[in-house]
Amino acid sequence: MLLHTIYLIAITAEAMSGAIMGIRREMDLFGICLIGTVTALGGGTVRDILIGHYPLSWVAHPEYLAFTICAAVVTAIAARKMHHFKSAFLIVDALGLVAFTIIGCDIARAFSEFNPFVVVIFGMITGVFGGLLRDVLCNQIPLVLQREVYASVSLVTGGLYVGLQWLDVNANVASLSALGVGFVFRLLAIRYHWMLPRFNEKDVQGFE
Amino acid sequence: MLLHTIYLIAITAEAMSGAIMGIRREMDLFGICLIGTVTALGGGTVRDILIGHYPLSWVAHPEYLAFTICAAVVTAIAARKMHHFKSAFLIVDALGLVAFTIIGCDIARAFSEFNPFVVVIFGMITGVFGGLLRDVLCNQIPLVLQREVYASVSLVTGGLYVGLQWLDVNANVASLSALGVGFVFRLLAIRYHWMLPRFNEKDVQGFE
Amino acid sequence: MLLHTIYLIAITAEAMSGAIMGIRREMDLFGICLIGTVTALGGGTVRDILIGHYPLSWVAHPEYLAFTICAAVVTAIAARKMHHFKSAFLIVDALGLVAFTIIGCDIARAFSEFNPFVVVIFGMITGVFGGLLRDVLCNQIPLVLQREVYASVSLVTGGLYVGLQWLDVNANVASLSALGVGFVFRLLAIRYHWMLPRFNEKDVQGFE
Repeated sequence: MLLHTIYLIAITAEAMSGAIMGIRREMDLFGICLIGTVTALGGGTVRDILIGHYPLSWVAHPEYLAFTICAAVVTAIAARKMHHFKSAFLIVDALGLVAFTIIGCDIARAFSEFNPFVVVIFGMITGVFGGLLRDVLCNQIPLVLQREVYASVSLVTGGLYVGLQWLDVNANVASLSALGVGFVFRLLAIRYHWMLPRFNEKDVQGFE
Repeated sequence: MLLHTIYLIAITAEAMSGAIMGIRREMDLFGICLIGTVTALGGGTVRDILIGHYPLSWVAHPEYLAFTICAAVVTAIAARKMHHFKSAFLIVDALGLVAFTIIGCDIARAFSEFNPFVVVIFGMITGVFGGLLRDVLCNQIPLVLQREVYASVSLVTGGLYVGLQWLDVNANVASLSALGVGFVFRLLAIRYHWMLPRFNEKDVQGFE
Repeated sequence: MLLHTIYLIAITAEAMSGAIMGIRREMDLFGICLIGTVTALGGGTVRDILIGHYPLSWVAHPEYLAFTICAAVVTAIAARKMHHFKSAFLIVDALGLVAFTIIGCDIARAFSEFNPFVVVIFGMITGVFGGLLRDVLCNQIPLVLQREVYASVSLVTGGLYVGLQWLDVNANVASLSALGVGFVFRLLAIRYHWMLPRFNEKDVQGFE
């Protein structure tokens, strides 16, 4: 199953990127492993808790924890070499964002007769909440709330996937189309520094 | 139903106040919508997760998400005008705090034979945890832990509501009394800058 | 039951240490009580939410809330005297960490046929996530991710406990052995300032 393979690669890459953030915050080895794991598996965990879907994926498949912990330890050991793989990380992260979103939509749809709009929201939560929890634990405003077209990629991917299935398109076709469109959209967003509109302090003067 | 109308007005106002905080943190449009939604619906979501009450309100009623997202977008567009409504926000927020609390107590009581003390706690969680999550995502110590008589209003409202029902007072009378007392209490607390006792660093010297 | 007695002493001590952190962050009385309660009961709450184990311990036993709130209020009143008990806090905290871990493993094992590795993880979550939530609410990077051999004590305690039971050792013997080994391990870690390997910013230059 293509999606599952991408999923395993993606949680490994996400755990590595989380571990790098942990190293930059001067965490110890435990902290690095925990932050890597939260980055990789946090989005799916939040989704499952919000749905009430038990057991959680990493409880049913503890090997996912083994993947993320090993990835974090390897990152800590090889930290000085990691910047050579910077572009690879961006690409795998883009793939992961899109794959997480599609998997999240699938799990939400399989669980209950949710409204399609809610399914897309759960896909987005799966895609972006791992990084959001990582940033909360690193004591910074979540990047996904401030920068870049990232959550938007997830929403477009999920919307396309759910929309195509609603139109009775074959599930594999829907999933490959959403994967392709979302991935290209994310790469273009990185390449051309696309951003959503932002606002600033001056716009809301008068509130203290 | 009066409470339900107040609820819809309150989640709209809370989403707007969350959005203003997001703008002040230089978030993009996605961040503003997410922070508005978390502020408005986060308290009820935390309550439902702590109770194990599924589906969550916004999963069963996706129109709530539509309300909060529209409110956040409008706030972003009209940001420069928002300070004209500052007093209106404080009043609607006070009403929302009290209404959220009563609704939270109701949901907890309907779900299980909880201890009345626990019901009041769930009412308070419904009332204040949206703002608490907002502050965590905005990377600041939650205001509700430091300033003003806010959570206390929620506890008094919930205590009165649960106490009156325990005394077999009619549910509507109990709910209107708690609504009125809580609302006036909150307005007085704002007007006269009431605060709970606070402590400071010097009191705990010797701990590092 | 020895473990239950240690549990009650430990939640009281954890609530007091949480309250001290709240005082240092200039919280008001509500904030101090909430931060004390989250520190004491947050680990078990996160574990139960991740397992899907309802009702939560403090919902089933509201007297736990009474314990933590009273402990926080007493701490606020007697704040200036608290530093006299600094060593006592460290010792009770060590005992609590170990007892929380063993209780967490027990609850996870009783709930479902989890993989032993997952049981140890739930023990660790019970032991350390209260402090982690406390630090998130106090707007700082969780101490447990950066400093000292703390989570490791929890993992060793849980691993020993689950391992001994897997070897068919009597439950009381397993629990007392794990309690003793974990407690001594933690005291030694404090005494000799043991730390896990840490990394720093320079190791990951090249990532921005």
